[in-house]
Amino acid sequence: MTWSNAKNKELQERARKVIPRGMYGHESTILLPDEYPQFFSRARGARLWDVDGNEYIDFMCAYGPNLMGYGFEPVEAAAAAQQALGDAMTGPSEAIVVLAETLVGMVDHAGWAMFCKNGTDATTMAIVAARAQTRRRKILAATGAYHGAAPWCTPRPAGTLPEDRAHVVYYQYNDADSLEAAFKAHEGDVAGVIATPFLHETFKDEALPERAFATAARELCDRHGALLILDEVRAGFRLARGSSWSDLGVRPDLSAWGKCIANGHPISALLGSDTARKGAEAIFVTGSFWFAATPMAAAIETLRHIREGDYLERTVAAGRRLREGLQQQAAAHGFTLRQTGPAQMPQILFEDDPDLRLGYAWVTEAMKRGVYLHPYHNMFLSRAHGLDDIAIALAATDDAFAAVKKRRDVLAPHPIVAQMLAPH
Amino acid sequence: MTWSNAKNKELQERARKVIPRGMYGHESTILLPDEYPQFFSRARGARLWDVDGNEYIDFMCAYGPNLMGYGFEPVEAAAAAQQALGDAMTGPSEAIVVLAETLVGMVDHAGWAMFCKNGTDATTMAIVAARAQTRRRKILAATGAYHGAAPWCTPRPAGTLPEDRAHVVYYQYNDADSLEAAFKAHEGDVAGVIATPFLHETFKDEALPERAFATAARELCDRHGALLILDEVRAGFRLARGSSWSDLGVRPDLSAWGKCIANGHPISALLGSDTARKGAEAIFVTGSFWFAATPMAAAIETLRHIREGDYLERTVAAGRRLREGLQQQAAAHGFTLRQTGPAQMPQILFEDDPDLRLGYAWVTEAMKRGVYLHPYHNMFLSRAHGLDDIAIALAATDDAFAAVKKRRDVLAPHPIVAQMLAPH
Repeated sequence: MTWSNAKNKELQERARKVIPRGMYGHESTILLPDEYPQFFSRARGARLWDVDGNEYIDFMCAYGPNLMGYGFEPVEAAAAAQQALGDAMTGPSEAIVVLAETLVGMVDHAGWAMFCKNGTDATTMAIVAARAQTRRRKILAATGAYHGAAPWCTPRPAGTLPEDRAHVVYYQYNDADSLEAAFKAHEGDVAGVIATPFLHETFKDEALPERAFATAARELCDRHGALLILDEVRAGFRLARGSSWSDLGVRPDLSAWGKCIANGHPISALLGSDTARKGAEAIFVTGSFWFAATPMAAAIETLRHIREGDYLERTVAAGRRLREGLQQQAAAHGFTLRQTGPAQMPQILFEDDPDLRLGYAWVTEAMKRGVYLHPYHNMFLSRAHGLDDIAIALAATDDAFAAVKKRRDVLAPHPIVAQMLAPH
Repeated sequence: MTWSNAKNKELQERARKVIPRGMYGHESTILLPDEYPQFFSRARGARLWDVDGNEYIDFMCAYGPNLMGYGFEPVEAAAAAQQALGDAMTGPSEAIVVLAETLVGMVDHAGWAMFCKNGTDATTMAIVAARAQTRRRKILAATGAYHGAAPWCTPRPAGTLPEDRAHVVYYQYNDADSLEAAFKAHEGDVAGVIATPFLHETFKDEALPERAFATAARELCDRHGALLILDEVRAGFRLARGSSWSDLGVRPDLSAWGKCIANGHPISALLGSDTARKGAEAIFVTGSFWFAATPMAAAIETLRHIREGDYLERTVAAGRRLREGLQQQAAAHGFTLRQTGPAQMPQILFEDDPDLRLGYAWVTEAMKRGVYLHPYHNMFLSRAHGLDDIAIALAATDDAFAAVKKRRDVLAPHPIVAQMLAPH
């Protein structure tokens, strides 16, 4: 084994001087195992190289943006061609119209589109548009669901004020009664309900949406004149080639998209039905780079591959193979895994592992063997994850299970994580 | 004259179906003269081509992002080289450290940097960090100043709630007394003061900062334990190669940057002094594309040209030549212009033009002659605007003045703008 991290450590030291805490946000390794690399130098297909040259099969896909494989040639070619003509200009290019038409053609509820940069932009625009449309205040959101990092929704409230979420009301995901109770408690003042296609919280098992819950959400919104907002930022186009709730027969009024829609190029989107157009027309939202043409050209090409390619079947097949292999390995080594969520967006936690020390040790062993797994966040598979990659990954995870089994009695938890997860 | 707009009109019609109001945000032409093109196909240097193939000398520079010229080769080469390696990955690249070190080296008050995508991200992070640092609530902002399009600051409040700006208190720019009064009214609860380097409002004359005001802002923040936030998003690096208030001898605690720092590639930044590090360490902010390497590589190269090149002297010289030429032309044709702000970020309004019909007619005539000017928003010059371009532009504006003079008695105002500007 030649894994090393000298260059990474040197960069971390430099970073600590000029970046608060050395890094911030979801790509900070502060809650990851100590030896996880913070800095990467290259990515291609399903592979990732850190700054020390260690190569990984990457099961995070940039936390979502990588859908077709890193550096997917057709998308890169479309982006480069547009970049040579113009990106951020004094107005948008034709691409914004083509892209809006494309999404309207692919997502059943959509009659229009607006583009932005962050997933948080799209979810925030959704709640502002819902309030403008209904002239009401309350947004019902599921407890623990992540909708971005703006003051109204950031999971760590430091620097935010009670007023920022004074009109956000919480319900329990998959619990129609709690949703109905929230509507009742704020009769006549509910602007919208926001929900992710399935529940994908960090540090917890994932939960698929129950049809009764999705149907009740739609029905309650209709009955009370509120708008249903689907937050597709993380899951969009990973479950279906259109709206994630199509197979449940539920159409939202607004949906927020981002991450993978341009295979890594920076763009997000708010889509809406024609009944939800009035609110979107009333609000003022903008950003310096929101009209830039290059990510739109990349999105148009990515969406073509979403429609015409086999990425969905491939990610499901690879995810299932991984899941089955891990289940067998865990059993053989005397562990029990909780593998939840869609196979192509898996969450993997260990049973009987309250402070996650087993999981942290296992992903560390796998990482050092060239497989980048995440110990508390759902993972992602891309079209580039072939069954051959899964086989290589499984060989490494098998060794990782064996290594953890051997060290089981001397494992210590990650200090911050242990504190976070300790019973209060 | 071969100017035409058939293709633009066709795209506008398609856009109206799939984009609310046909377009949104600051690049919507809804408040511009009727014939202004909405869609562009290409940009290079100081030139811009609309979808009908009309060529313009562009004095908007994408509303700021274009500083060195569209498609500036050294920056494009750096971006393409990084893109070939990796952009959005499962962690940042070395570029984030180099870029943070670079900005810390260039901006006098800065001890650290955080990167994001929108200018609004950076200004919002600034106020959240100030609140986290001080554990206070009030942010003092100048009446009319633009700090972004989030619920706490968007200029059109549809869909926002009173709570979103419950703790934003307004003062008058360049009026130290009004700032002091705001501090007194909220004694012990002021987290920060936010100010743009100069006042650049739409539809109004620009105002340069008075030294006494900037000094008082610093002094009041120090006396009351509040943080001074400079919103450099629009003006940063266009007035100076470092902090815009350096020549006033005033250092802010936090500064928000964006638009031109990567010459059009999508990135913005929050910089802070070491005394303001604690708040930045406490907050949780993130975005799917905030750690992407390509715009950081573009920024590093852009900043090198900012430090080593003559872009600043060139934009000032070109802006002054334009200003002088226009002043002479206006006088010769019997008009009086109000040209305000820095010559490289000029605002041009007509005297005795309360509903802007003169200005709108003049920019329309100039636009049809190949010069893209803005009738109500400050403009921008780039390094690519040579004195030869200014001479070409001035020939067109001279004809535009003559044409407006001829039609003066039959001009009508833009209907929405006239309503907006009508005395209440």
